[in-house]
Amino acid sequence: MTDSSEPAEPSEFPDRTNRDTSRTPAENAQLALLLEVAGTPKPGNVDREHEYPDLRFEHFLAGAVGAREGLAMAEAGEPVGEAFERAVRGMATQRGGNTHFGALLLLAPLVRAAAAEDLTSGGVAAVVASTTVEDASDFYRAFEHVDVAVADPPEGWGDLDVRRGERAIPTLRERDLTLQDVMESSAERDGVAREWVARFERSFRLADRLAALEGSVTERAARAYLEALAAEPDTFVAINHDVETAHEVTDRAAAVLSGEESVEEFAEELIEREINPGTTADITAAGLFVALERGLEI
Amino acid sequence: MTDSSEPAEPSEFPDRTNRDTSRTPAENAQLALLLEVAGTPKPGNVDREHEYPDLRFEHFLAGAVGAREGLAMAEAGEPVGEAFERAVRGMATQRGGNTHFGALLLLAPLVRAAAAEDLTSGGVAAVVASTTVEDASDFYRAFEHVDVAVADPPEGWGDLDVRRGERAIPTLRERDLTLQDVMESSAERDGVAREWVARFERSFRLADRLAALEGSVTERAARAYLEALAAEPDTFVAINHDVETAHEVTDRAAAVLSGEESVEEFAEELIEREINPGTTADITAAGLFVALERGLEI
Repeated sequence: MTDSSEPAEPSEFPDRTNRDTSRTPAENAQLALLLEVAGTPKPGNVDREHEYPDLRFEHFLAGAVGAREGLAMAEAGEPVGEAFERAVRGMATQRGGNTHFGALLLLAPLVRAAAAEDLTSGGVAAVVASTTVEDASDFYRAFEHVDVAVADPPEGWGDLDVRRGERAIPTLRERDLTLQDVMESSAERDGVAREWVARFERSFRLADRLAALEGSVTERAARAYLEALAAEPDTFVAINHDVETAHEVTDRAAAVLSGEESVEEFAEELIEREINPGTTADITAAGLFVALERGLEI
Repeated sequence: MTDSSEPAEPSEFPDRTNRDTSRTPAENAQLALLLEVAGTPKPGNVDREHEYPDLRFEHFLAGAVGAREGLAMAEAGEPVGEAFERAVRGMATQRGGNTHFGALLLLAPLVRAAAAEDLTSGGVAAVVASTTVEDASDFYRAFEHVDVAVADPPEGWGDLDVRRGERAIPTLRERDLTLQDVMESSAERDGVAREWVARFERSFRLADRLAALEGSVTERAARAYLEALAAEPDTFVAINHDVETAHEVTDRAAAVLSGEESVEEFAEELIEREINPGTTADITAAGLFVALERGLEI
């Protein structure tokens, strides 16, 4: 209670309109990682209601906390490869293993483009085109921090198998390969690399869907994920299982969308079979980032 | 596949032992906020399986992202009041309203003590004792950013009602009150203020419980929350409802612990009655921070 002998004021308590409603690109990227994993159900992937015994929701929270410093480097204009390597190193400060490798590989150039105030297909393509051999080297260094499931390298790229980590760097230098070159080499088999060479088309499309859908942001994220899963076979599933399994998952996601199958049962089954469409989750995180930058409100 | 004509190496692929396993105090504080809200069920509070229509899980994620900059200021040795005000301003960049006000009020001095490498009862008491009138002023400024449910001020403190926000600052200066003084004035009715004047006893005790319990970190957090709820009436419940309700919640939490009542039904009922023991959640976040700083692994 305030002293009633005070002169009357227009309102006893101030209104709460002086909010600072801006988040930096690095903050939006971190939030995108958190919103992606919070969206449920996202069949096959860890979300707030689905976990694997050794890869739990809390590992994704810790991964997103650890990744922030690298995302801030991308925002500050540091080289994309270095920022990515730092983000992965921070992400790996938890015991679940790989939580966000692919998502960070998409976010690093997107954050850089956003910080340059050109978060468009053209803007991020320019970031990709500007990558160097040093960026490629840092990308290989990132594999030292965590085990990542990847496709076998293409013909003639044996010495450049990413699983060799920094031991592949001399070959990168010899052959003068930039990070763009490295991504082009695996675009055929890896959906994240494909985004790099195809102007992040699916990420931007997913951002549009998030803006068009209704409901809470995590509800929209879960729906947009399912649509993306139904639209294109997940390359992470193809790598860890086979192309047929990836196609099966796509068909089943389409069946869920058309109401022929229950999303909850589909989610339970994929977790049981350890089929996790990680690339689609990565693109969902990238789409969330773009949507947040464009003003999607939480 | 790598070229098989290469000389044999001890292991084809490097092992993944060079992880950087350290998080900064600000990162641990942000992670504590995320782990607290991820722990489920935490009867009455938002968690990853329980939400209110206008206060959802995603608001807590955005709040934790926005709070980080202020937590980093506390780590860097900026004044506790200024760091807290900045954390609350960042927290408020979402539409759910107050997600972490009390937790941040506990974390600001704890982060400061951790950064000074004295995260002990004595260390944080020293931080509290060092607060100034400027810290108190920034505390009042923080109320400009978000609506917070608070107790009516004690006798003689009418002009210092925190709901007056920065309009109370001239009186603070006149009466030369530090943030410690302000906390002492409300310790009787507010459990967060009580931590400030009682050397963060409950926060440290909760950290010990987290270390002693088994299971994932979010499982431990949910259990430690329930134990804390059963141990002491929640002052946030007493403020928003009444003292009887706070006592009822305490007794019911004890009944859950002894197996007489189902935790899920208790959780559903509290959400339905809009009874959220926010102070106990704040202390859970503080305890999580202390436990993470002491090496609790994720």
